[in-house]
Amino acid sequence: MSSSSTEQKKLNALYAQSGGVTAVLNASACGVIETARKYRQTMGKVYAGSNGIIGALTEDFIDTSQESARAIAQLKYTPGGAFGSCRYQLPALEANPAPYERLIEVFKAHNIGYFFYNGGGDSQDTAWKVSQIGARLHYPIMCVGIPKTVDNDLPLTDNCPGFGSAAKYVAVSMREASLDVASMAKTSTKVFVLEVMGRHAGWITAACGLAGDKEGDPPPILLFPEIPFDEEKFLAQVHQYVEKYDYCTIAVSEGLRNLQGAFVSESGLQDVFGHAQLGGAGPVIANLVQQKLGYRYHWAVADYLQRAARHIASKTDVEQAYRLGEAAVKLALQGKNAVMPTIERVSDTPYKWRIGVADLHDVANQEKGLPRDFISADGFSITAKCRAYLQPLIQGEAYPPYKNGLPDYVQLKNAAVPKRLATGFTV
Amino acid sequence: MSSSSTEQKKLNALYAQSGGVTAVLNASACGVIETARKYRQTMGKVYAGSNGIIGALTEDFIDTSQESARAIAQLKYTPGGAFGSCRYQLPALEANPAPYERLIEVFKAHNIGYFFYNGGGDSQDTAWKVSQIGARLHYPIMCVGIPKTVDNDLPLTDNCPGFGSAAKYVAVSMREASLDVASMAKTSTKVFVLEVMGRHAGWITAACGLAGDKEGDPPPILLFPEIPFDEEKFLAQVHQYVEKYDYCTIAVSEGLRNLQGAFVSESGLQDVFGHAQLGGAGPVIANLVQQKLGYRYHWAVADYLQRAARHIASKTDVEQAYRLGEAAVKLALQGKNAVMPTIERVSDTPYKWRIGVADLHDVANQEKGLPRDFISADGFSITAKCRAYLQPLIQGEAYPPYKNGLPDYVQLKNAAVPKRLATGFTV
Repeated sequence: MSSSSTEQKKLNALYAQSGGVTAVLNASACGVIETARKYRQTMGKVYAGSNGIIGALTEDFIDTSQESARAIAQLKYTPGGAFGSCRYQLPALEANPAPYERLIEVFKAHNIGYFFYNGGGDSQDTAWKVSQIGARLHYPIMCVGIPKTVDNDLPLTDNCPGFGSAAKYVAVSMREASLDVASMAKTSTKVFVLEVMGRHAGWITAACGLAGDKEGDPPPILLFPEIPFDEEKFLAQVHQYVEKYDYCTIAVSEGLRNLQGAFVSESGLQDVFGHAQLGGAGPVIANLVQQKLGYRYHWAVADYLQRAARHIASKTDVEQAYRLGEAAVKLALQGKNAVMPTIERVSDTPYKWRIGVADLHDVANQEKGLPRDFISADGFSITAKCRAYLQPLIQGEAYPPYKNGLPDYVQLKNAAVPKRLATGFTV
Repeated sequence: MSSSSTEQKKLNALYAQSGGVTAVLNASACGVIETARKYRQTMGKVYAGSNGIIGALTEDFIDTSQESARAIAQLKYTPGGAFGSCRYQLPALEANPAPYERLIEVFKAHNIGYFFYNGGGDSQDTAWKVSQIGARLHYPIMCVGIPKTVDNDLPLTDNCPGFGSAAKYVAVSMREASLDVASMAKTSTKVFVLEVMGRHAGWITAACGLAGDKEGDPPPILLFPEIPFDEEKFLAQVHQYVEKYDYCTIAVSEGLRNLQGAFVSESGLQDVFGHAQLGGAGPVIANLVQQKLGYRYHWAVADYLQRAARHIASKTDVEQAYRLGEAAVKLALQGKNAVMPTIERVSDTPYKWRIGVADLHDVANQEKGLPRDFISADGFSITAKCRAYLQPLIQGEAYPPYKNGLPDYVQLKNAAVPKRLATGFTV
């Protein structure tokens, strides 16, 4: 039996990244590719979709077998999405079967038997839809989702890779900025506002609460998307803290809503033509404090910095991201379809966790908000229960190597797989 | 001779922090205090002014001799200003001698013979004024300035402590955010804007240029405060880069001005009452790109995060900050008054530097802008000469220790020195 005939019998794998990228998304990619290489007797090549599932539809595949072991290992400490990500959702099969028929055409052409989709809620919905093409369109595939989202809002997994590193970044940044403003408060800035991500769920906002260890430590005020913004109560709280500590730091979710349910970020700013403006909840809140209380302020908007900050990633997060990629390959090789490996927490102290498995159908399009008992009664801080949950997720540092004073992140070759189909597909 | 009579002959030192704090300001404090402790046979106690020179005027002194050697050593990796800073400038002696007479009264009461003032241009002006009270008001004092500013705009020193760490932070952040937006460009964000500090000098903006190693690497566009903002030329450049690379990242100085000389940050936004708004150059530029070119964008404003980010400080910067504090004490003990230790660059490659000395009078109130030949001809990037200057300043990592996943920054006891004067002073 020739090597090439063996090769043909092995099914290849397609791995793709989806949705907003994170500091550890590539660590999951590393887990998938390194594990697949260990099982090369049974699993063929790992192709990556260029820009997520769009690459699968347009037949734009990247051949990861062209990358050295070293380059693949470097993915573990490189932020972003090494193969490109996308925001794209498949339509329902009943509504429009064309994309599914195209996927099958592409999968057949490249002998794809395994599909790994690495993303958040919307992406797991896509993964679930693809997992159904075996039963419904008779193309056998092992489709396994891999969780990822800085928002930490996927159900059935104790936490999501990407979140722990974003949480560590905002907690560290808030601790540092609080030391800064505390130094300046006597004659200058008294209030500092940091705007963080999490439009619908306050997990990252909550993580800012880790900046302080004990009562009175900054930041005193967290503004969650789950708690409608009560301006009067908030201003009273800021005033009270400045009277007591001489300064006040505030973390605000980009998704903070007022009592009428409208986004605070959209409430107030307009350009010179009268158009509602980009805003940002951070500057709006800072400006409110200045107008109503007269305190000097500064504000920051972390935006992509918080989800790309691999330089200060959580070691726990990096390990979990890798292990979930590894687990996905093992599940696929065990013949599991329509599943997603998860993180199961065994204990808080000492922190112990293990890999579990969830049904993709139960994961798709569900959002897990911050439980009410993770937020203090007054709505401005986190509870001990929340702290016990969050603390393990930011543990450990996993510094990337440096070159010339900067992290030495890898740039893959991303060699294209030659197309085998005569037809294209427009997404 | 009793120990206490010896004690009385030794002159005490006053150390104070001034202006915006940095990631390594406390490293200079550490250098001062540790060095003074080595010379305890000749130098008395080191007191710190609570909130800069204001503490000297109000007789609010902190007794650093109450701090353990370990706590003082921890200052080397703790950001902010451990004793409080201030924004306060002394009036000219001729205009108002009262504050100077008060200073002398306080200095006499506490046997102060050495004064170390750690700050930027305005603060060195204050230091210079204090240095003149010996000659003009007959109170002998050795007054030594210690440079500090993230803006890197002090003259006569090759660079300023605080800048190297801010530069490293923005270069790392820009590299990370660029990887993020590159991943998203196919179907989502194509343009990312990072607003950085440096209202009058583009040093930090220039440092964002280090994020890329070679032609075509991000970030392609830097908007310096030294180069008037030409909207048309800028939009053409953004369009060209997005056509070529599919995405574009932009660093903009908070102090960017338009062709008419007005701050771009104040050009456009207003609140619903028609008041000019907080703005920020970052969101203004991002919004312009969206309105004129239609690209999806994200923007971040690093604000205090960039100058407080001790977690990613430059090792070179930390060492220089410490060494300048050490040098200040040695200069004072050598009887030098009205001077400031500086960094003298000996060579770029390998980077070699030594401590120099400048006359405080020549330092005060001078600003060193980015030289024109550090900026490319088109005004949008840095030259090789600029890169050669900047590169050594971000070299090396000097990670703080961590506890529970967060940097273990020190909180000093800051024990008050009992007041000896019956009179107060209102600043």
